[in-house]
Amino acid sequence: MTAPSEKLLLFGATGDLSQRMLLPSLYGLAADGLLPSGLAIVGTARSGHDDAAFRAFAEQALRRFVPSERLDEAALGGFLARIGYVPVDASREGDFAALAEKVGATDRGLSIFLSTAPSLFGATIDGLAKAGLAGEGVRIGLEKPLGYDMASSREINDAVGSVFPEDRIFRIDHYLGKETVQNLLALRFANGLFEPLWREGGIDHVQITVSETVGLEGRVGFYDGAGALRDMVQNHMLQLLALVAMEPPARFDAAAVRDEKVKVFRSLRPIDRAMAASHSVIGQYGPGAVAGGPVPGYVDELGKPSDTETFVALKANIDNWRWKGVPFYLRTGKRLPSRQSEIFIQFKGVPHSIFDGRGAVLQPNKLIIRLQPDENVRLLLMAKEPGLDRDGIRLREVPLDISMPNAFADSRRRIAYERLLLDLVEGDQTLFVRRDEVEAQWEWVDAIRDGWAANAMKPKAYMAGTWGPSAAIALTERDGVTWHD
Amino acid sequence: MTAPSEKLLLFGATGDLSQRMLLPSLYGLAADGLLPSGLAIVGTARSGHDDAAFRAFAEQALRRFVPSERLDEAALGGFLARIGYVPVDASREGDFAALAEKVGATDRGLSIFLSTAPSLFGATIDGLAKAGLAGEGVRIGLEKPLGYDMASSREINDAVGSVFPEDRIFRIDHYLGKETVQNLLALRFANGLFEPLWREGGIDHVQITVSETVGLEGRVGFYDGAGALRDMVQNHMLQLLALVAMEPPARFDAAAVRDEKVKVFRSLRPIDRAMAASHSVIGQYGPGAVAGGPVPGYVDELGKPSDTETFVALKANIDNWRWKGVPFYLRTGKRLPSRQSEIFIQFKGVPHSIFDGRGAVLQPNKLIIRLQPDENVRLLLMAKEPGLDRDGIRLREVPLDISMPNAFADSRRRIAYERLLLDLVEGDQTLFVRRDEVEAQWEWVDAIRDGWAANAMKPKAYMAGTWGPSAAIALTERDGVTWHD
Repeated sequence: MTAPSEKLLLFGATGDLSQRMLLPSLYGLAADGLLPSGLAIVGTARSGHDDAAFRAFAEQALRRFVPSERLDEAALGGFLARIGYVPVDASREGDFAALAEKVGATDRGLSIFLSTAPSLFGATIDGLAKAGLAGEGVRIGLEKPLGYDMASSREINDAVGSVFPEDRIFRIDHYLGKETVQNLLALRFANGLFEPLWREGGIDHVQITVSETVGLEGRVGFYDGAGALRDMVQNHMLQLLALVAMEPPARFDAAAVRDEKVKVFRSLRPIDRAMAASHSVIGQYGPGAVAGGPVPGYVDELGKPSDTETFVALKANIDNWRWKGVPFYLRTGKRLPSRQSEIFIQFKGVPHSIFDGRGAVLQPNKLIIRLQPDENVRLLLMAKEPGLDRDGIRLREVPLDISMPNAFADSRRRIAYERLLLDLVEGDQTLFVRRDEVEAQWEWVDAIRDGWAANAMKPKAYMAGTWGPSAAIALTERDGVTWHD
Repeated sequence: MTAPSEKLLLFGATGDLSQRMLLPSLYGLAADGLLPSGLAIVGTARSGHDDAAFRAFAEQALRRFVPSERLDEAALGGFLARIGYVPVDASREGDFAALAEKVGATDRGLSIFLSTAPSLFGATIDGLAKAGLAGEGVRIGLEKPLGYDMASSREINDAVGSVFPEDRIFRIDHYLGKETVQNLLALRFANGLFEPLWREGGIDHVQITVSETVGLEGRVGFYDGAGALRDMVQNHMLQLLALVAMEPPARFDAAAVRDEKVKVFRSLRPIDRAMAASHSVIGQYGPGAVAGGPVPGYVDELGKPSDTETFVALKANIDNWRWKGVPFYLRTGKRLPSRQSEIFIQFKGVPHSIFDGRGAVLQPNKLIIRLQPDENVRLLLMAKEPGLDRDGIRLREVPLDISMPNAFADSRRRIAYERLLLDLVEGDQTLFVRRDEVEAQWEWVDAIRDGWAANAMKPKAYMAGTWGPSAAIALTERDGVTWHD
């Protein structure tokens, strides 16, 4: 690891992500004494704040989004004293000169976090370079979306790459900052128990679900141009798939972990034009009911006709030795019955039940890695129910919570961005996405979209508040698999 | 399974086991409506009770040994109404005629439970046969000790076998009636998770500990002639070892399960004269302190010199494909620091830690099957401690309780004899010990005793309240293994 930065520059400092996540994360780190003690934070955006106005803005955001029991007035004051502000319009070169003056020397380390519209990336990178804010001591963190297909992604990566070398570019996928996602790595690689089963022959199938109950909300402009596949699958869900499927890296470091993940992406069997209809299902929600109340359909919310998918289900295969014949079912969508993000791993059942004549029904073992609404890892085992077994042996599925709160009662749950911001400031790339990963993800996703277009596939309607179109159920039931709801 | 007996005959009905275990077990079964509704219970012993006097005796025992919240007056009355009594002196043939008259016809099924001194077995079996109480409808349950070596065991088994065929002989090892012992079978054979590791290559070693804090107590006559090896290892501990080590039986029935167990006993590497000194340690407690109070040494309690071992530790090996090179360490003793019966299975660690450079220390996975003082099955896994891992990744051993009370809150813990008495009455031999098992157990144990004699090994002194002689520590530490206390 390199030395920690002594300065942090936030682009998009007045935006929604900044208010809800970035400022509260930085406050949380500062309050716990985890930020480098002298770290100065400079915010920037187009708004014409000065330091005092931005501090007032930040204070308002923190009072709103930090849980009150975490708000300590002394810590808050100390945090606000660290931050300053410079207004920057990326199209105006002069603004970057003022920014550079405010930031000062960067040889002792500067971390930049770019949370702005992708359309401004080029001008921003250019402005940073010209103002001398891209030197050797400077790292840059990039928030999604980083393009909408392979070509646009390459364009952005080329622009950033022309100024920053890959080892100073930190592409954020905030799912990688989640405690439970990291715990998945600990489970797999710190325990001998799972590895013999963690492959074809031991695992029957894997399900990854990221379901939302919300509809379009305020994201009209962005979402209709993206759709569920690009909004959720290309980044978060493929990252989860890679962490489940990757070979053991030699070390838990940025190079080894990302080498293994990219191998998984490159082993994904393309869902091409011939397979699109059988291996993918797309849907768009119509009017329905969520949480007991009526909600409008997608096109009503949007205000115009649209073929954008608000739901996608995929059957993915990984063509390598470990995963031959093990389906990975992915599904994500808006206006589904519950907010639930989880990885569900179903192991193979025992080859033969010795309890058959005794009336016991055996369930295969399962591992459930839950990201939302709560974070938890649960193992399901069969155990004997205490009793005298007069009408057959009673076996029951027992849930074992591995990351149960009482095992770790002394730690508060942190925002995923706390981990990622700290890793950026300290220069650890392990939980950030490398360019070759992003491009391998796009390659697979672009082929699916190409298949939809070539087959003129349109999203099937589903009622808001249901688990997507019935074809999504059929996608797994054909294989004898039921979605874990 | 055969038809349930309609009568139950208890030999030794006024003894200690009967008062503490058998009568309370039968009461518990009756109170829960689990005994065949018309089951008549006849007690017998030398004492000259009549029905009424024995009912009074039984009531007293139940009021003393059944927990008060389980004592229901109506159930108690109903239970006592089932029982009768006939005095029998096994040496008097006439007594058996009176017994036969009391018991009546046996064609609808009679179960006999023999809990008497082994010296009376021959005469009792003989008396039963001559009185017509050994016909086709009669099953016989035998309580230990069944001999003190191979020759005496064969003598008893020959005597019983001359009257009862093996499929009507039910040899009791009450450890097999324990809920957690049966749960071990459920864990192994109802879950796919463990099987790939359950062998050499996956398991580092197994420890079986049965420790007592008590000393000689009232067992002066029996114990000094037996010692720890014959009192605990030959029966209970070897049965536990077999359940851990056996191959999956094809069915959970008496023939298949016992076929697999006996294969394990026959695969035990003999601890012969050459190996006795290196693979076994014997000890005898001297004065010391238990639970804060001073206690006398064994010979002081006994009142005469003795070479009987009150402690034994063994390193056993099973010479078959599955267990090549996996040591099974056994230890048992009196006047040890705590009462603790458990099977401790240590899996192999991961072959390589990817977290090495990050300061994490990995513990191998473990499975602990606990019989005493509480019954529980616990799996120990490594999980990530929530947090930002600034000073290295923090991994912690998390205990998962598989048979935790709250998973099965609706079932009360039963006495092991409840299960076994019901299996006897209903004719299910699965949890009883077959003759070939007993003899294979004696063969292994006799060879160890022969080794001690040939090498003139005497028990080493250990202080009451400690974990046996220091040589027992050395027995495992030589292999880099530490006893799990």
